[in-house]
Amino acid sequence: TGVAMMKFKSPPVNSLSLEVLTEFSISLEKLENNRACRGVIITSAIPKIFSSGLDITEMCGKSLEHYTEFWRAVQEMWLRLYGSNMVTVAAVNGSSPAGGCLVALSCDYRIMAESPKFSIGLNEAQLGIVAPFWFKDTFVNIVGHRIAERSLQLGSLHPAPEAHRLGLVDELVPEEKLMEKAAAVMAQWLALPDHARQLTKTMMRKAVLDRLVAHREEDIKNFISFTSKESIQKSLRMYMEMLKKRK
Amino acid sequence: TGVAMMKFKSPPVNSLSLEVLTEFSISLEKLENNRACRGVIITSAIPKIFSSGLDITEMCGKSLEHYTEFWRAVQEMWLRLYGSNMVTVAAVNGSSPAGGCLVALSCDYRIMAESPKFSIGLNEAQLGIVAPFWFKDTFVNIVGHRIAERSLQLGSLHPAPEAHRLGLVDELVPEEKLMEKAAAVMAQWLALPDHARQLTKTMMRKAVLDRLVAHREEDIKNFISFTSKESIQKSLRMYMEMLKKRK
Amino acid sequence: TGVAMMKFKSPPVNSLSLEVLTEFSISLEKLENNRACRGVIITSAIPKIFSSGLDITEMCGKSLEHYTEFWRAVQEMWLRLYGSNMVTVAAVNGSSPAGGCLVALSCDYRIMAESPKFSIGLNEAQLGIVAPFWFKDTFVNIVGHRIAERSLQLGSLHPAPEAHRLGLVDELVPEEKLMEKAAAVMAQWLALPDHARQLTKTMMRKAVLDRLVAHREEDIKNFISFTSKESIQKSLRMYMEMLKKRK
Repeated sequence: TGVAMMKFKSPPVNSLSLEVLTEFSISLEKLENNRACRGVIITSAIPKIFSSGLDITEMCGKSLEHYTEFWRAVQEMWLRLYGSNMVTVAAVNGSSPAGGCLVALSCDYRIMAESPKFSIGLNEAQLGIVAPFWFKDTFVNIVGHRIAERSLQLGSLHPAPEAHRLGLVDELVPEEKLMEKAAAVMAQWLALPDHARQLTKTMMRKAVLDRLVAHREEDIKNFISFTSKESIQKSLRMYMEMLKKRK
Repeated sequence: TGVAMMKFKSPPVNSLSLEVLTEFSISLEKLENNRACRGVIITSAIPKIFSSGLDITEMCGKSLEHYTEFWRAVQEMWLRLYGSNMVTVAAVNGSSPAGGCLVALSCDYRIMAESPKFSIGLNEAQLGIVAPFWFKDTFVNIVGHRIAERSLQLGSLHPAPEAHRLGLVDELVPEEKLMEKAAAVMAQWLALPDHARQLTKTMMRKAVLDRLVAHREEDIKNFISFTSKESIQKSLRMYMEMLKKRK
Repeated sequence: TGVAMMKFKSPPVNSLSLEVLTEFSISLEKLENNRACRGVIITSAIPKIFSSGLDITEMCGKSLEHYTEFWRAVQEMWLRLYGSNMVTVAAVNGSSPAGGCLVALSCDYRIMAESPKFSIGLNEAQLGIVAPFWFKDTFVNIVGHRIAERSLQLGSLHPAPEAHRLGLVDELVPEEKLMEKAAAVMAQWLALPDHARQLTKTMMRKAVLDRLVAHREEDIKNFISFTSKESIQKSLRMYMEMLKKRK
């Protein structure tokens, strides 16, 4: 059918580690270069969680070289996904904070399981850190400046119904209908001639993609200098402790 | 009353041919220079159709000189209408795809006949072509980035009620009340002091107008090189065949 | 509690005179430099009016030096408020036209008394003048381009329920609950780590703040040359006469 399926499967919570991100980018690149593949549906193989976002252990107590490599992998994943020529549909079958939210935001269309137990958002501020400007740009392109400003400052995680009301996801369906709906949406988008659709997508997204490309090294430096701060390291360690206790 | 009325009247479907566009721009210029005229209502004299958009016969099997002249006329029309000092109200009394939609989007206010049989949108992608960046800029200024991205990629034609929900048109009224409503809206806008209103309009629209002015020749080159492609010529011929069969 | 309260109290209608603006900026600066202060609630001590906006007597029949000093004070107030590191909540307990609206728009969150008798908006066009570009930028960041374009051209004053529908204010509450609600919202925002929240706020607002900083002298010149025009002076005098008769 020309449609690929990518499922996050890194127990327990689909953290985006350096390894996962690298694998994700390579898979995307392969699909992109495969002329038979015109669209990809992204979902999770783990119940209740789409992706918990960037793996915090990659940002804690590691070398500067490691931080550099990790951040470049995060950038690479986003550049490939947000700039993909394929139709990209996120079937958000669980919670999706921070980097997990970014993955969903970077697709062409977001369908979410309608349970209010699942939430989505760029909650970086809650952890004492700041979403990078290109996370913000992606978010603003979807929900507009005002909703983004408030949501990012509060680090909000929006339950599915609220996320839908804000425009953060396009559609809610019962969880058991999610894949069926994703396939139907994909068919609708693939009905368009690829070339015209791709040029249109590029026209809409190029400004924001170009901004990261132009400031990529600077963005890495910012990430490293921010993350290396003792106060930030402490915040992240505390957050990880809290997560461990929760289990 | 200081209000002019312009009615598209090019049977069968108010295509925007080179001739129609040129006449439209000249009429606008005359009204603009007429101090007695402060506003213009744009509508159609043909039932069920506002305007079917750019005349595809002008883009098919013609010389490069012709394409250049045609595209310059499209640009000219938009620069005059979107940048008009007059109050411009679109009374959309029928369907309005592609270039027809652009005309409506370029006015200060859009009232549409409420019938769900009438639709409006920038459906270029459906034809295998791409809306130019300034069509897109005009669209984004009205409905925001997200709605524009989705609608342009899908080449959506939105039935009137949906167009109203998306903010693509400002108001729906029964068809028989359309002109009455347009006159009432015009009176409301003309109650403002012209000078302050005009300066405010310029402040809101200048960035987008300037962008085309700065890239006008490049935009013509893009149009020609895209339109001249054999694959695009084929798409357009197929589309025209389909339209002929429909009749 | 780390929360300051600022109340406009310049009878009869909380006009923003040079003196009031200067005092406001100095107060903000002091709070900003006070490490114990993390948030400020802005409201009015005068019933039915939040602030009537810039004091027109400062713009009428004065010297160019005076206009310069006045306009610089308006800019200064906005730069401090829109760029504040504190959490800023507007408790809009009455009408808030023009400059009064700008004060509310520059806060992080706006709660308004729900009475439809109270209205808010940038109504400059009604007076024959034009909102400066940074008033417009602040407005667009909140309600988007389309609503801003229409509202600014018409110089609309939106009754509280409409203002809420448009996103111009975030929440409506009965007037007697206003301060309680403002305190609750403030507590919610202060629950976030200051540093992450501040960096996020800067990321969202910097582009618009920088634009005024870069064009500050030019903006003053524009204000003076526009305001000094005999036609504008006449409009403002007429408006003041009308206000006097109303009392």
